[in-house]
Amino acid sequence: MKPTATFIPGPSQIYFTVEDHIRLAFRESVPSISHRSKEFEKIFQSTTESLKVLLGVPPSFHIFFTGSATEVWERAAQNLVNETSFHFVNGAFSLRFFETAKQLGKQPHAYQVEAGNGFINPDVPEGTELIAMIANETSTGVTTSNDFVATVRSKNPSALIITDAVSAVPYQSIDFSIVDSCFFSVQKGFGLPAGLGVWLVNERCIAKAEELQANKKNIGSYHSIPSLLAMAKKNQTPETPNVLGIYLLGMVTEDFLRRGLETIRKETDYKSALLYHALENHSIVKPAVSEKDWRSKTTLVAQTGNLTEKLNSYLESHGLLPGDGYGAAKKTQLRFANFPAHSKEVYEKLVDLIKGFE
Amino acid sequence: MKPTATFIPGPSQIYFTVEDHIRLAFRESVPSISHRSKEFEKIFQSTTESLKVLLGVPPSFHIFFTGSATEVWERAAQNLVNETSFHFVNGAFSLRFFETAKQLGKQPHAYQVEAGNGFINPDVPEGTELIAMIANETSTGVTTSNDFVATVRSKNPSALIITDAVSAVPYQSIDFSIVDSCFFSVQKGFGLPAGLGVWLVNERCIAKAEELQANKKNIGSYHSIPSLLAMAKKNQTPETPNVLGIYLLGMVTEDFLRRGLETIRKETDYKSALLYHALENHSIVKPAVSEKDWRSKTTLVAQTGNLTEKLNSYLESHGLLPGDGYGAAKKTQLRFANFPAHSKEVYEKLVDLIKGFE
Repeated sequence: MKPTATFIPGPSQIYFTVEDHIRLAFRESVPSISHRSKEFEKIFQSTTESLKVLLGVPPSFHIFFTGSATEVWERAAQNLVNETSFHFVNGAFSLRFFETAKQLGKQPHAYQVEAGNGFINPDVPEGTELIAMIANETSTGVTTSNDFVATVRSKNPSALIITDAVSAVPYQSIDFSIVDSCFFSVQKGFGLPAGLGVWLVNERCIAKAEELQANKKNIGSYHSIPSLLAMAKKNQTPETPNVLGIYLLGMVTEDFLRRGLETIRKETDYKSALLYHALENHSIVKPAVSEKDWRSKTTLVAQTGNLTEKLNSYLESHGLLPGDGYGAAKKTQLRFANFPAHSKEVYEKLVDLIKGFE
Repeated sequence: MKPTATFIPGPSQIYFTVEDHIRLAFRESVPSISHRSKEFEKIFQSTTESLKVLLGVPPSFHIFFTGSATEVWERAAQNLVNETSFHFVNGAFSLRFFETAKQLGKQPHAYQVEAGNGFINPDVPEGTELIAMIANETSTGVTTSNDFVATVRSKNPSALIITDAVSAVPYQSIDFSIVDSCFFSVQKGFGLPAGLGVWLVNERCIAKAEELQANKKNIGSYHSIPSLLAMAKKNQTPETPNVLGIYLLGMVTEDFLRRGLETIRKETDYKSALLYHALENHSIVKPAVSEKDWRSKTTLVAQTGNLTEKLNSYLESHGLLPGDGYGAAKKTQLRFANFPAHSKEVYEKLVDLIKGFE
């Protein structure tokens, strides 16, 4: 049976307007336009401007497009670190950023906490060049508050701070007055087909990359910050990009602006409260994250133990596809994405089913 | 006026079946499926198997997906070169591969010929690790014959040879018995929306990358050959890829197989003969490449001199959008892609219009 809704945290449920936007794109020949044309520049400009409005990005930030958020781990380590980065690690994705820096020959350090936990200690070694935060750890469903990031910032005024905002935005606000860079991919909270990463950097990031370049460090080629910046200033990209993806991101961002971010946030809060409440009051299934403040509103994880497969099949038999637990938790947890593409109705159906599961 | 056909050599005309394939993809929830699911593995496997059949790729080659062909310039220089590469350069794109190797700290050398020319001298310095060939230089419309590549191979049995096949395939055959790697992007000959690169490597490439890795050389992170290979063996990708793009590539490749590559080649030959004949016999407009053997069948370039803008407007007023000349030739040449997506009828209309242009 084909599911009526998928709760896998990315690729996830596609936002309901996307298919219409693709139809319009074909009618307007968007997939055929040259990436060096005025038409493309208009799409680039319109998408980045809409994103800045939706996410509250100051004008001083630049927006770049990459192939994936995974790519940004590499580009950030190349362009923003000479020697030392420091990583707040509480799951598989924050760990992979750390490992990427190591693979590129940097000397990353990490403060690692158990799966299901958030961070308590904001201390970072002196002299750290780049601090990597994670707004929402998709593998464990743990969120990091802006207050915690603010504490890290106040103790480390000179370090660059980059936030992995994959699966956090647009629900979770990023405080651009305290972070220098953030990145995400479009197949999570934006409900789009995968194949596009978005990377935001401020002037301090640009200065750092230019300094590394001036010192003959290897910062990559076409997707180095200076190369991305030179093209972004013309509303272009160094390579032929995912033009249709950039167009669709702009269209869905405009949809979100029309719907209103406050409405989206209220609905997200409502849906997450519904599911967490059901999990807390369930006789056998529980929230995987015990500390309430750490519980993600966009990626909800249920501790399902040896009933995981049974609950999975039960939900699937009703047309709802949960996400597997990640890695070692594959057989003991289920994950539920709570993105703007997930309607209140489908969440109510999910929660009713879980309540009835014994 | 929205053009009825675009001859820009990529992004170019979209193959006529693509929109239907997207509709089917949405009906089957392809944009929502997890890139770690069996469904995705089936798509990966089916697309790579179809490509191997269409392009005549031996089973020993592996097929990887990247964000673009531009990315492969970087990945190839990182993974296949310790110190020295040698580049056959006859235009902007073969030059950028050379420059990418330089940006990554390699010591590339080049045999560079004038724009509009092909290669005569097959000599390569001894000890070169990687030889970069270009099957079709999109900026100038010059092709490189398999005979020339064979000569280079016979003189350099131990070097790796990589062929930039962007805008060449599927029309132009790649001789996989003499090259070790080739790459292309999908928005040229496959008539697809941009945002996906395809990279083929054999066991010698894998051995080279593993050797560099063993010697602690920086071969990148998620898109290093060992990382791409480990995931490709599971019919997966290291990052969340352009799932829809991989699906569409598979579907269009199957369309091409049904139509038959010989038919596609005959039609390409017919269309290119028609246009070159018209240009040769025209009173004012001429083929830009004087040597017939070097003339590309897939990217035809017209020397249009100070009539460039006039011819451009004339064709556009009839709904046909030519590609600008590249770089310095922007105001003196026009380029015409001749891909499977360009029907015989639209080419006949184009040629009739050019014949009538005075």
